[in-house]
Amino acid sequence: MLGASASAAALVGLGSWKSAFAQDARPLPGYAAWKDAGSMIVHSPNTIELRRGAMGDGAITPARQLYVRNNLTPPSADILKDSDAWTVQVDGVRRPRAFTLAELRGMSTETVTMVLQCSGNGRGMFPSKPAGTPWQVGAAGCVMWTGVPLRELVRALGGADAEAKFLTGTGGEVIPAGIDPRTRVERSVPIAALSDALLAWELNGQPIPLAHGGPVRLVVPGFTGVNSVKYVKRIALTADESDSSIQQTDYRMSAPDAKAMNPADPSVWQMPPKSWINSPLPEGGGLRAGAVTIKGVAFGGTNAVRQVEVSTDGGASWKVATLVGPDLGRFAWREFAATVDLAAGSHQLASRVTDVKGRTQPEARVENKAGYLNTSWRDHAVTVTVA
Amino acid sequence: MLGASASAAALVGLGSWKSAFAQDARPLPGYAAWKDAGSMIVHSPNTIELRRGAMGDGAITPARQLYVRNNLTPPSADILKDSDAWTVQVDGVRRPRAFTLAELRGMSTETVTMVLQCSGNGRGMFPSKPAGTPWQVGAAGCVMWTGVPLRELVRALGGADAEAKFLTGTGGEVIPAGIDPRTRVERSVPIAALSDALLAWELNGQPIPLAHGGPVRLVVPGFTGVNSVKYVKRIALTADESDSSIQQTDYRMSAPDAKAMNPADPSVWQMPPKSWINSPLPEGGGLRAGAVTIKGVAFGGTNAVRQVEVSTDGGASWKVATLVGPDLGRFAWREFAATVDLAAGSHQLASRVTDVKGRTQPEARVENKAGYLNTSWRDHAVTVTVA
Repeated sequence: MLGASASAAALVGLGSWKSAFAQDARPLPGYAAWKDAGSMIVHSPNTIELRRGAMGDGAITPARQLYVRNNLTPPSADILKDSDAWTVQVDGVRRPRAFTLAELRGMSTETVTMVLQCSGNGRGMFPSKPAGTPWQVGAAGCVMWTGVPLRELVRALGGADAEAKFLTGTGGEVIPAGIDPRTRVERSVPIAALSDALLAWELNGQPIPLAHGGPVRLVVPGFTGVNSVKYVKRIALTADESDSSIQQTDYRMSAPDAKAMNPADPSVWQMPPKSWINSPLPEGGGLRAGAVTIKGVAFGGTNAVRQVEVSTDGGASWKVATLVGPDLGRFAWREFAATVDLAAGSHQLASRVTDVKGRTQPEARVENKAGYLNTSWRDHAVTVTVA
Repeated sequence: MLGASASAAALVGLGSWKSAFAQDARPLPGYAAWKDAGSMIVHSPNTIELRRGAMGDGAITPARQLYVRNNLTPPSADILKDSDAWTVQVDGVRRPRAFTLAELRGMSTETVTMVLQCSGNGRGMFPSKPAGTPWQVGAAGCVMWTGVPLRELVRALGGADAEAKFLTGTGGEVIPAGIDPRTRVERSVPIAALSDALLAWELNGQPIPLAHGGPVRLVVPGFTGVNSVKYVKRIALTADESDSSIQQTDYRMSAPDAKAMNPADPSVWQMPPKSWINSPLPEGGGLRAGAVTIKGVAFGGTNAVRQVEVSTDGGASWKVATLVGPDLGRFAWREFAATVDLAAGSHQLASRVTDVKGRTQPEARVENKAGYLNTSWRDHAVTVTVA
């Protein structure tokens, strides 16, 4: 058991890294060395987030600023060398078969713009300090994925098995001998997700980098990042959820005082509505009394955004913000802006989003053992000082 | 006069470059060295296009694959070092003033997705072989620009001067002493363009690189690239068109046999509807008889796309294609796909777009002296061989 644990530590890349933890700024790991170092916070080799102040003014997050969260060490970059030969097996359909990426490229493609967000984004704002990476807001981005709609593949293969209830994707990470095979990255989502899911090979118009799951990634719009399986080797329409530990005992909304994650608790799947302010921020400084434009991003998870409100008095009163920038579909985020008048002094700025189904971002987080799905507007508020 | 001409040659970077012209693959110039060399065709240091086969499957063209066309050698990259201090003077309004980029950043922003296309894209398909870069299809891309709407700036400054009929932008290129100042990059477009134009500082969510006009570019959606002035130093709402040579005697739709460009001929401003096929291409090879998916891009210039048709028999018959991927607004291109059945043999594949105003891409190009605005579907057809 100890041996397996040590091997697991090696697998997730905790070996030589620990010494670097003492340093102030950790270096980007090799597979993500092409990221914009000045914009990123490196928590560990497998957990890298974007600084809140570096989110920019655009609707799309550039790949070099997109967060990274790997549950296992990525496969060798060699898998990108002959990407056309990468195969994805499709099971749980009438006529199972494998497709090479070259074959997928020849089919009609779709592009979906979506918020990719780690299940634990905002965990660092839980006062309970749950175990896991203390993400702030930057384990999220809005990106464009291009590939083949999974529903079309399934249709071409004669449809799903009658008893299928889940869409299950299996990642291509190498599980060393002696490691429990349930360590594999394999996630199941409700089969309804089939209508939006892609087998994607482009991220923002470029081949998907290794750090983000290339050559082929299963993309499940509206769901947290873990459900979009990287280096996907197999898709199956299954009667049951995967028996992998990442499905059964991780990513569950278990009670804060639970001794362990319970497979009976709700799985972390769809994202609830969320917004946050990216400008002004306390670290920006230089605010002078008068008109100040508050800017941020807002999304409904699976639904489009209806409205964003901002508050300059810690939630005592609210004002409707303007949605700016393009509407890139219901899975994308919207940028918002509101010009307010701020007097000298300290002000708590907050934002809250309401989606088209009428769901409003709540004041309180949903307490849970692992610190998932923090959407509290109070936690995401910022206090700025005006001279 | 000869001296001025030689200096002008130096200004446009034709000095040491000529020797490189003899080589097969010319190197990317330093300011564009970050481009994806394998995807680009380097015509000259100031004219670089994207290969037709490298356009990919995404709706957005990554910056590293975006064509470059500079009318003058770009300014020093030093202008990006303290980009916040870059100033843009706004004249021709009730209260003229200069804005620093830092000030612009604090305002409410917009993002526009648009086709950026060189006026001469497709010139290489004119049998008359007009002077100028023989662009094929790759002097075009679909990109997202983020910045401040110019109409808001003008409103904040009290509105346009009563006699203003044009929006005139001036580039920040350095014009050496002794060179005719009319050599400057200064373009005027009809003032109606004010409703869509931006002062932009982000391209696809990243600061605009020098090669594309950073730190600030005037972006005029729906107009050819030359009208979106790079390194913009001044915006003016003017009663007359600029007296610059790039306005007066270049970029005019003059008759093929005209001795010189005539300022009385129509200026190259708005883009007409256009489409082309990116896959399959003759150079791709490997086509086998049976179902083949034809893919390409289509845009209406200033109007949204209503419909794209494809032909597999050189235009004798047409079939409606499916618009795939996201609708990113009326200035963006749409991707299209049509799965057709091809027998063994040779097939001429063509596409033509119709915009929502009912304008259909024509079979014939509009002949003109400088080879501008080639939208001929016949010229853009490709002939593929099926085994």
